[in-house]
Amino acid sequence: MALSTELWRRYGQLAPADIPPAARRWGQQSILDWFGCVLAGTGEPLARIVRDELGGGSGPASLVGTGARVPEQMAALVNGATGHALDYDDTNNVGGLHTAAPTVPAALAVAETEGMSGADLLAAVVIGVEIGCRYGIAMGLPHYQKGWHSTSSIGVFAATAAASWLLRLDEERFGYAMGLAASMSAGVQANFATMAKPFHAGWAAQSGVVAARLGRRGYVANADAFEATAGLVDAAGTGEVDRERLDLVRDEWLVTRTLFKYHAACHGTHAAIESTRALMAGRDAADVRSVRITVHPNIARVCKVAYPATGLQAKFSLRAATAMTILGDDTTSPATFSDERVGRADLRELMRRIDVVEDATAVNPTSTLVRLQTARDSVEAGHDIGIPRPTWWHRSGTCGRSSRRSPAR
Amino acid sequence: MALSTELWRRYGQLAPADIPPAARRWGQQSILDWFGCVLAGTGEPLARIVRDELGGGSGPASLVGTGARVPEQMAALVNGATGHALDYDDTNNVGGLHTAAPTVPAALAVAETEGMSGADLLAAVVIGVEIGCRYGIAMGLPHYQKGWHSTSSIGVFAATAAASWLLRLDEERFGYAMGLAASMSAGVQANFATMAKPFHAGWAAQSGVVAARLGRRGYVANADAFEATAGLVDAAGTGEVDRERLDLVRDEWLVTRTLFKYHAACHGTHAAIESTRALMAGRDAADVRSVRITVHPNIARVCKVAYPATGLQAKFSLRAATAMTILGDDTTSPATFSDERVGRADLRELMRRIDVVEDATAVNPTSTLVRLQTARDSVEAGHDIGIPRPTWWHRSGTCGRSSRRSPAR
Repeated sequence: MALSTELWRRYGQLAPADIPPAARRWGQQSILDWFGCVLAGTGEPLARIVRDELGGGSGPASLVGTGARVPEQMAALVNGATGHALDYDDTNNVGGLHTAAPTVPAALAVAETEGMSGADLLAAVVIGVEIGCRYGIAMGLPHYQKGWHSTSSIGVFAATAAASWLLRLDEERFGYAMGLAASMSAGVQANFATMAKPFHAGWAAQSGVVAARLGRRGYVANADAFEATAGLVDAAGTGEVDRERLDLVRDEWLVTRTLFKYHAACHGTHAAIESTRALMAGRDAADVRSVRITVHPNIARVCKVAYPATGLQAKFSLRAATAMTILGDDTTSPATFSDERVGRADLRELMRRIDVVEDATAVNPTSTLVRLQTARDSVEAGHDIGIPRPTWWHRSGTCGRSSRRSPAR
Repeated sequence: MALSTELWRRYGQLAPADIPPAARRWGQQSILDWFGCVLAGTGEPLARIVRDELGGGSGPASLVGTGARVPEQMAALVNGATGHALDYDDTNNVGGLHTAAPTVPAALAVAETEGMSGADLLAAVVIGVEIGCRYGIAMGLPHYQKGWHSTSSIGVFAATAAASWLLRLDEERFGYAMGLAASMSAGVQANFATMAKPFHAGWAAQSGVVAARLGRRGYVANADAFEATAGLVDAAGTGEVDRERLDLVRDEWLVTRTLFKYHAACHGTHAAIESTRALMAGRDAADVRSVRITVHPNIARVCKVAYPATGLQAKFSLRAATAMTILGDDTTSPATFSDERVGRADLRELMRRIDVVEDATAVNPTSTLVRLQTARDSVEAGHDIGIPRPTWWHRSGTCGRSSRRSPAR
């Protein structure tokens, strides 16, 4: 049986009420978080260009934050690119992609076009994330290592599934839609750090809408074009679907593995920021003599800017993010990471007293240790961002996980 | 220097008058051939669906054969899918893709939108084909062998280049456009023999228009996203640009290597049809006792249907195509390849007297030998379709190649 058929039998026929409370809460948080990202992103130059070029025409679907209503496809594309503009949106490490980025804009555009409810939107997003993450698992890690940007190349399956659920596709037509999605899977990492990266999310969202709409009309494609011979797993993966890992998560609601960002920098800096925040409680920046940050080599590779020259570079600098935290900067605000801030003397002076140490045995890829040497004492704290923890987590006991301190948003 | 920059310096600044006559003639033939394919394809179910779903709105660009005018992007998509619906369009074996399929609809939509001339359209198509084929060569053969459908995955670069030339992009903005194209490269062979295959051509055409339009507005992407680390050659090829083969064709006009189809079946059957036509001149079908077709194993793998049950299958059957030729069927007409025809007794009886022999030493992948045993004699003829030969070839001496018999269209 095609993977698409198997997953549609499991998720395609669910009603909103069939989704357990924890998955619903995480889905709600993901949608809310995504709206925040779109609203914050509307003023970005890339969002303006994509809106000016591709946001024309009139239709039933909103361009979030602008008041304009445009055709469904266009809304999915423009909102999708805008929502990923600041790279502040959520991540699912199990599926290996930013999940809201392609999924929510596709679902939102279709739900608005069809006049459906918020409950339907929520169910579509959760189902899209469940199916999309499983495509990511099935594809396996080498896909990303080759250079594919899973947020679009895998995200297109999440977007297609979300749109298909809203359009009530039957099993056969869902197979057509997912077959088409396999032929629209795209996006390479060589375009990271350009406007093309956010575009990937929008393009995947639009592709998902197109795939679902064509599938609904009986536009034939192969339901197994992902895993069949000369399909996407052959073309862009190992040639083998990772059945073992799929089985491992069979009964999990993967949406509850979504990680949210609480700081406007690369995810790799967040554990350092959180550790430093904990240590600085009751301490004074003026007392800090030196700092040692211990990170996993995977993180050092990504957050590799030693002494940033621009605000954008500071988002990829462990040293800068930690120094800003010590100095009391509001790292939750994108505006904090400005070229002007990076050039100021207090930050540059403090960065020179910070060491970054790579150690694959002391920490894992989502955790970081920070040691502060102050005038009075030497203290160390660690933090792991790899545990999903929406902002409401400390107020909720529904999810059956051990509760941990929730970072302030 | 990025490949896109290198090629834009060579082709991007050309004026229509800079293109030599042979390349112009081949470009004209390609455009004319493509229009024939679109007009013949408009009635196909897939063309109707894609038109109904995606051909809405109004704008400056024609949906060929319908009288409707729609937004530029939509015209590129719908015309692109329609033009490849019958799989009757041209092929460029050097670039390794159907070239007109993604290139002409992209160029046509932009040229109409910008109110440009036929001479501009022609130049854009030739330049798009030159650049696109070079991306195909640079990517190398393993790309197709992995399962990518080059007509879209490489065709998107041809479409982007054609649209970019019409929009007069400068070097920097062309780099953005080609960077975006690298992130829109898509389409897998697992969807062959479904409606998704023609969709690939339309999607690549639309992607090319979007890439060029965004590039023109300064939407930043990396000019070398094709060949850079974690770019498309890493993700979907060997990791190495094939510089050697690129240099080999450096001074050629690759558009003159375009092959046109003269029969409504898979290209792999054409040499058998042509050989058989030559042998049947002055002979009677009733006299044919037996037939032996000698083909290269590569062709046997593609045209692998021994005894077809449907008209579509007959297009991929050497035995059926040859038998139809002997019986005097009009193999140039798509209507000939019908389920009804395939079921008739005369064809089925004759097919049983046809043998297909694979021999990699007697023929090459574009040539075929046919031996007829008749009541009176035993005769053999061969034909090679691998030599570009537009229908006007026998009337033209401009191209400096040895003249060969031109098959009637």
